[in-house]
Amino acid sequence: MGGISFALHGLAVSSGIAIGRVHLVSHALLEVSHYEIPENRVEDECARLRAAAAAIKAELAALKATTAASQASAELNAFLDLQAMMLEDPLLIEAACDRIRQQHINAEWALTQQLDTLLEQFDTIEDPYLRERRADVIQIVERLLKELLGLARPPKPRRDDLPTIVVAHDLSPADTIGFRGQHIAGFLTDVGGPTSHTAIVARSLQLPAVVGVRLARQLLEEDDLVIIDGARGVAIVNPHPSIVEEYRLRKAELEISRTRLARLKDAPTVTLDGTPIELLCNIETPSDLELVQRVNADGIGLYRTEFLFLDRLDRPSEDEQYEAYRDVLKSMKGKPVTIRTFDLGGDKDFEPNTSRVQPNPALGLRAIRYCLAEPTFFLTQLRALLRASVHGKLKILLPMVAHAHEIDQTLQLLARAKEQLQREGKKFAEDVELGAMVEIPAAALAPGIFLKRVQFLSIGTNDLIQYTLAIDRQDDAVADLYDPLHPAVLRLIAGTIQFGAKNGLPVSLCGELAGHAEYTWLFLGMGLRQFSMHPERVLGVKQRLLHADINELTPKVQRLLKLDEPARLREAFEKLNAALPAA
Amino acid sequence: MGGISFALHGLAVSSGIAIGRVHLVSHALLEVSHYEIPENRVEDECARLRAAAAAIKAELAALKATTAASQASAELNAFLDLQAMMLEDPLLIEAACDRIRQQHINAEWALTQQLDTLLEQFDTIEDPYLRERRADVIQIVERLLKELLGLARPPKPRRDDLPTIVVAHDLSPADTIGFRGQHIAGFLTDVGGPTSHTAIVARSLQLPAVVGVRLARQLLEEDDLVIIDGARGVAIVNPHPSIVEEYRLRKAELEISRTRLARLKDAPTVTLDGTPIELLCNIETPSDLELVQRVNADGIGLYRTEFLFLDRLDRPSEDEQYEAYRDVLKSMKGKPVTIRTFDLGGDKDFEPNTSRVQPNPALGLRAIRYCLAEPTFFLTQLRALLRASVHGKLKILLPMVAHAHEIDQTLQLLARAKEQLQREGKKFAEDVELGAMVEIPAAALAPGIFLKRVQFLSIGTNDLIQYTLAIDRQDDAVADLYDPLHPAVLRLIAGTIQFGAKNGLPVSLCGELAGHAEYTWLFLGMGLRQFSMHPERVLGVKQRLLHADINELTPKVQRLLKLDEPARLREAFEKLNAALPAA
Repeated sequence: MGGISFALHGLAVSSGIAIGRVHLVSHALLEVSHYEIPENRVEDECARLRAAAAAIKAELAALKATTAASQASAELNAFLDLQAMMLEDPLLIEAACDRIRQQHINAEWALTQQLDTLLEQFDTIEDPYLRERRADVIQIVERLLKELLGLARPPKPRRDDLPTIVVAHDLSPADTIGFRGQHIAGFLTDVGGPTSHTAIVARSLQLPAVVGVRLARQLLEEDDLVIIDGARGVAIVNPHPSIVEEYRLRKAELEISRTRLARLKDAPTVTLDGTPIELLCNIETPSDLELVQRVNADGIGLYRTEFLFLDRLDRPSEDEQYEAYRDVLKSMKGKPVTIRTFDLGGDKDFEPNTSRVQPNPALGLRAIRYCLAEPTFFLTQLRALLRASVHGKLKILLPMVAHAHEIDQTLQLLARAKEQLQREGKKFAEDVELGAMVEIPAAALAPGIFLKRVQFLSIGTNDLIQYTLAIDRQDDAVADLYDPLHPAVLRLIAGTIQFGAKNGLPVSLCGELAGHAEYTWLFLGMGLRQFSMHPERVLGVKQRLLHADINELTPKVQRLLKLDEPARLREAFEKLNAALPAA
Repeated sequence: MGGISFALHGLAVSSGIAIGRVHLVSHALLEVSHYEIPENRVEDECARLRAAAAAIKAELAALKATTAASQASAELNAFLDLQAMMLEDPLLIEAACDRIRQQHINAEWALTQQLDTLLEQFDTIEDPYLRERRADVIQIVERLLKELLGLARPPKPRRDDLPTIVVAHDLSPADTIGFRGQHIAGFLTDVGGPTSHTAIVARSLQLPAVVGVRLARQLLEEDDLVIIDGARGVAIVNPHPSIVEEYRLRKAELEISRTRLARLKDAPTVTLDGTPIELLCNIETPSDLELVQRVNADGIGLYRTEFLFLDRLDRPSEDEQYEAYRDVLKSMKGKPVTIRTFDLGGDKDFEPNTSRVQPNPALGLRAIRYCLAEPTFFLTQLRALLRASVHGKLKILLPMVAHAHEIDQTLQLLARAKEQLQREGKKFAEDVELGAMVEIPAAALAPGIFLKRVQFLSIGTNDLIQYTLAIDRQDDAVADLYDPLHPAVLRLIAGTIQFGAKNGLPVSLCGELAGHAEYTWLFLGMGLRQFSMHPERVLGVKQRLLHADINELTPKVQRLLKLDEPARLREAFEKLNAALPAA
């Protein structure tokens, strides 16, 4: 407490500001004590272990009951069921009891021994899906150990009345949901990505979270004062009182500006000159739908489907997929829902075939390439999508397209899926539109390949910038070279928008830039009329466009696009936005 | 012999066709026998070890004498010196003798024990340069073991009079040069890249070689009949007699066509309509200069400088660099020599800072980015280049440029280097031109950043295609998507050429495509007037352009560039070339 002040950086997955004190979620496996049990107490020890398992089972059931009504329930229920199932597996509790009886050791020791045996078995398993179950076994054993050790208690209330910042290696859904109702202000974890449990639950609780903060648990101590700046992905540890004061003000401002923005929710989305604009949302999981409703968006511009691979031993079945797609379509009540086919392969987290070496995964077998290399797998997704299409207005979006033959092959698979469904008497909408992501320079440079093949385009600025500049922005060594205002980037985006307008092909923009309000006027001047972004960004962008006059912006932006010199370009960009009234 | 026929694929590093029988270069470390030595024979065993060391030292000295006169000598001499030095290190031979005395074991066994101890020590070394010396120690011990085991004998002559195909895990310069004068037809190795010793020596001996043929030694047996197709990077093992006959004919044709092409060497490089064209060479090391002279090229369009990092424990000094650059400038006698600054970082082989993790090295800290991150290191190269500039016509080429500030920073460093040299009274040419590689889409899309900053451009098609299509062509899983005829690729190349012509900025093309004669007419029609390629390709391209009428080609190519449909584009491309007389 009151130690040296320092900052930790991680991945921004849920925005907002939190000021609180650290509660370290302990890593029970490291704290197990080993002792012997007298012969006559052996059965009592077994009973203690069974009681711990029963307590957790009860807790899981209670959690399931409380979350059943929420949007986030499908994936969480699957997880809770899996944990309950493992608690009943004789290879876990009963095998540990056998060890207690044979070796006269305490329950914690027996359990960790049994864990080691199970993990050894896992390591010999060839099947990558089954091997992934490894993490689940560790998680349930950790949970059991905490119960046995009495570590499962919630954090104590603090004397200074500050809320709790939960710091953990990684949080399971059970952990994070277990915190509900307590005075928790935010989350910090060592590992995790934008679709990790911590991220999903933090967003649904509307609490700031920073994940992937390496060594967070080592660097922080219980009761340390911490500020989380969720939007920037930063945690400030033991801040100077003046910094705390500064953040208290920012937090208050944020709340005022949120309240002010909230009033914009039902205003018509039209620029000053009367041009209607569509504001759509990007969602990672169905749990984000709550946020979408809150801002009254015009639809879903990007529904990523990779979350279906979270916490599973196998690939999601057609029926599971159908249900996940159907639920979102139904809940959007006829507003368009653009579902992107699996963007798997580049990211290790979701790579089922872990044995393949990819020297440059970002330039490797991912997204549409991966799906076309596994046509049966892809066909299952297309069938599920088509079946869901009767429940709303579905649009299918293909990621990472660069070649005409990639669309042609997908169209053939779509035709086959329709034929099969027709034969099986299953219904699907006839008017499902197919679209392509423009996120590879080749796609933006030769958009002619999309005519007569797809019905809409969606620009993915994150990858487009990455490839255009040959920069991996996850790589700290070059992240500073990632520049959305590089004239090459602006020309590719503007060129794609222009091409769409000229050829009657609707173009939306769904990369992160779509949600950055300082770019709204630039894109309007390029001719963009559809923006898709994180739900939290919608009202900020809406405020900008309500003040925009497209007739004024267009010639300014066209002049800006002709500039090559970075300094002059930035100046023109700043001048463009200077005309804006303060938010 | 006469076994099952199959093909092996690897990296094509030296072209030509070879038909011969396998000689496996044994991996002595795997074949060491262990036995005890009677006490009274211990000193004899030590003497045997010292004799082996002496024999190798004599061999190294002889090699050095025979190679001293050749162009390839600098790097080989450094290697030979290093090996001789290690043989005199008491930690090797004398330490092994101590083991013989103490444990009464045979010399081979003592030597491998001592190797293990040395390698353990290497593994604890933090310095990445010193750690690289590991491979050298293994190599010298292998060489000693072969001498001790009597495995160092050259292959026996075969009864069927076929020449020898040397198959090895990897060849050291000593190995490859040791084969000189023997009836060797080609090389196959398990590992290696375009700048490996095998590749360099094979090219200088003009023998076909395929490297990186995984498991070549496991799959091949002594005396197997093998055809090497060096240009395609393929080895056909135990081919059917009809295939052998086919390849004999191809080999003969190749020789005839080489002879025919050789006559073009001194013809003026002018198209049918009288447009003069410059044909330049890409070289990997100074040893390639011999090939450049043979085809009478107009200069060096790309001199890669990464070879300076081969076989070293440290970074090359300014003087060493100066000498390497000076020698090439001198030997080109006033013809332009374009030297590219270090393209280090992306390729693990040359990455000094091995501890840094690059998730996508192709999108990471490499080339100009790497050099600017290490300004002292970069300044040394710029000083060496400037000092060499008085010996010929030097042009400096910067790889992987995407941002104006990268050139500006380089210009500042160049100015500082000039200032320093002036102060030190060292001479340099005032008119050294600076140029930039166009190999990142951003550079081709916003070439305006190059005006007033550089004096020439050079298009690197290999990387440009890779980034434009978001494909890693080293990755088998997506290599088939690498398509030079993608309309996006053609537009970026044509756009850059056009931009240069309009602004008086000379543009050359130095990617692999420059050497593919079937693309020569396409590039001429785009307006390209400078081609830089592997020396072996120069005369083939020259033959094409002697038959080209640019006035005819230009409108055809402009029409082709407007096509989006891959099928129609390929058709137009084939039609363009169909007008060509048979070679």
